[in-house]
Amino acid sequence: MTGHAHQAHGPQLVSFTTDYGLADGFVAACHGVIARFTPRVRVLDVSHEIPPQAVRAGAEVLAQTAPYLPEAVHLVVVDPGVGTCRRGVVVVAGRGLLVGPDNGVLLPAAAALGGVRGAVALTDPTWWLPEVSSTFHGRDVFAPIAAHLAAGVAPERVGEPLDPSSLVHLPEAVCEVTATGVRAEVVTVDRFGSLQLAAHAGLRLWAPGTTVTVDGRPATVATTFADVAVGELVVLTDSAGHLAVAVNQGSATERLAAGQGSVLDVTVATDGPTTT
Amino acid sequence: MTGHAHQAHGPQLVSFTTDYGLADGFVAACHGVIARFTPRVRVLDVSHEIPPQAVRAGAEVLAQTAPYLPEAVHLVVVDPGVGTCRRGVVVVAGRGLLVGPDNGVLLPAAAALGGVRGAVALTDPTWWLPEVSSTFHGRDVFAPIAAHLAAGVAPERVGEPLDPSSLVHLPEAVCEVTATGVRAEVVTVDRFGSLQLAAHAGLRLWAPGTTVTVDGRPATVATTFADVAVGELVVLTDSAGHLAVAVNQGSATERLAAGQGSVLDVTVATDGPTTT
Amino acid sequence: MTGHAHQAHGPQLVSFTTDYGLADGFVAACHGVIARFTPRVRVLDVSHEIPPQAVRAGAEVLAQTAPYLPEAVHLVVVDPGVGTCRRGVVVVAGRGLLVGPDNGVLLPAAAALGGVRGAVALTDPTWWLPEVSSTFHGRDVFAPIAAHLAAGVAPERVGEPLDPSSLVHLPEAVCEVTATGVRAEVVTVDRFGSLQLAAHAGLRLWAPGTTVTVDGRPATVATTFADVAVGELVVLTDSAGHLAVAVNQGSATERLAAGQGSVLDVTVATDGPTTT
Repeated sequence: MTGHAHQAHGPQLVSFTTDYGLADGFVAACHGVIARFTPRVRVLDVSHEIPPQAVRAGAEVLAQTAPYLPEAVHLVVVDPGVGTCRRGVVVVAGRGLLVGPDNGVLLPAAAALGGVRGAVALTDPTWWLPEVSSTFHGRDVFAPIAAHLAAGVAPERVGEPLDPSSLVHLPEAVCEVTATGVRAEVVTVDRFGSLQLAAHAGLRLWAPGTTVTVDGRPATVATTFADVAVGELVVLTDSAGHLAVAVNQGSATERLAAGQGSVLDVTVATDGPTTT
Repeated sequence: MTGHAHQAHGPQLVSFTTDYGLADGFVAACHGVIARFTPRVRVLDVSHEIPPQAVRAGAEVLAQTAPYLPEAVHLVVVDPGVGTCRRGVVVVAGRGLLVGPDNGVLLPAAAALGGVRGAVALTDPTWWLPEVSSTFHGRDVFAPIAAHLAAGVAPERVGEPLDPSSLVHLPEAVCEVTATGVRAEVVTVDRFGSLQLAAHAGLRLWAPGTTVTVDGRPATVATTFADVAVGELVVLTDSAGHLAVAVNQGSATERLAAGQGSVLDVTVATDGPTTT
Repeated sequence: MTGHAHQAHGPQLVSFTTDYGLADGFVAACHGVIARFTPRVRVLDVSHEIPPQAVRAGAEVLAQTAPYLPEAVHLVVVDPGVGTCRRGVVVVAGRGLLVGPDNGVLLPAAAALGGVRGAVALTDPTWWLPEVSSTFHGRDVFAPIAAHLAAGVAPERVGEPLDPSSLVHLPEAVCEVTATGVRAEVVTVDRFGSLQLAAHAGLRLWAPGTTVTVDGRPATVATTFADVAVGELVVLTDSAGHLAVAVNQGSATERLAAGQGSVLDVTVATDGPTTT
């Protein structure tokens, strides 16, 4: 649990990822709590429109964004188990700290930030708000902890060390190399309806221009959206290094009736049945 | 109109609540106006996705959030009467100031911040933008006023004192204790589809585990969402101290076909008709 | 390319407009990149909910908002041609700089900020992120450039001057004065469903109270929404000085089944067929 040099720098950055949406005052209440504890800490909102209770989507969005942020305390609340016995934790990563529920949402980002170096269970209520609700630990527990950490409090002080191997992991997303291509789970869907697969670019088996099929529909392997005609399916390496399926100026989600958690087959197109 | 000690502190915080949505440049124009008047003032966005013209929802969201914010000038624009003779006002609360239209949207937050200590009608255009549109007083009137107040201008200087008893109030939300339970209006709906009732927790009549009905459908009184099975209705005290109806990892709005303004009956479930 | 006095002021403001939406981490990654290059620069989000690939809507939203912002570097990414040979550019305006793809999205704002004074093609990768993806130039190219400019780097240093007359313009929006009124294209639709026309207020031909038709439906010319009954169509001058069609406490988009790019006929209502 050494190696996090942030403490010497004084007030730092808190990144903030939730499934709270922006229609309610939930996000603002957390901002307010942080501002009251540490007025000089800046909060950088990653996303608050993670689909409700979508732990994997929250984990992936942060993991793909965090490497581009300054060193930060990453506050993450996608928390279907709020108020139950699930633990609240701080995870110490190679670069930065993560705070949230122990349901797997923090670990992909920790991996992207140099790996897990240690972990602390949030067992000491003296660092929380005086009154803790049963349904809003973002405001009452996690935001105060993130504020204290960003202000330089050492993670060890806010709870009890725990064995990082006991942290809850998400199940592995489906990702298989098949005889004719790749079979992989959609891990995120972006605003444009592009489907990001669990497969990383290292698995890309085809040169740009190759015709493939995605769940039986023809698609072209390419470098960017506009390499195919408007409305056509394209398979490319996205900006996070994942294999992704998109429609140029359209929505692959709609075209393929697929979404987060769907499993897609990307295969080299055959020339159709041949008879001799 | 004394007791607001904020003026000595120099630049302060503006909280900002509207029904403008985030797709247009309306919110940004207000941020820009504030930044031009007082570059050092920080703006904390509460929500800009209050349903269009939903004065009560805006009032409730701010009232439930403001107690968690640092002392601030609360700028609120949910304003179906923009450009008519409805007044613009500053309300001086026990802790902080509120700026917006005199349509009731400010008063629940004022109550949550220690009560109304005074009020000022915005009658002096010298504090507004030089050109005032008929449809965007957020940008042209209220944001400049909020900026000036946050920079330390005394409320008395931006208009004429008015009798606080003349401020427009929202009609009381329906909330009745019935022979078998509670009949109450939905005052907000959150992103998860949970229905927040006008009834406060003090009215909760049942211990956790009690089976009740909500508009005839069975529900369980509990402490948090996950106390019931996924997909089941739960009645709980929410993070603002209100009675609320939710579905664990689902939407009570959809389940009950109810929304803001609906009136729900929560009653102790009977054992059904008994015959002797 | 003189006249932009911002360089002497040290760190400045970046305004930020995209079609990225807020559900993904795209906006946050750009914020992070800017914060890493120039921690003291403030980013003011204009909108990230420009409809996907809607270049004209993005251009209009910024053009109507920028005049209300402090002097800034305006970062704009609505970029259907990302990764193709379309140029990235800096446009030097009378007040401020604009950064984004050369697809017309920057020019209406440049006009609103005093006109184009010069332009630079982003040809020098030393100012970009070390690795540039094919699909996310907002993060990899434009955000770093905006950060450098906001920190005081002269536009001339980040690429090669180009002839401003070679910049790509959007096609002119339809806007014709007809024998009986105006025929004009919808350039933006706001959250309230109001339809903003390409026609500016200078074209308004009718006094408040005049009855007109919009695509055959009766509407009233007025000053503000509430000048007509709830649910009625109103034609007014909006807060950006455009002619707009709205429904008081309703949606003109729904009423007229119209949206961005629709062309509407606003005509003086006849008294109906008269017989003699």
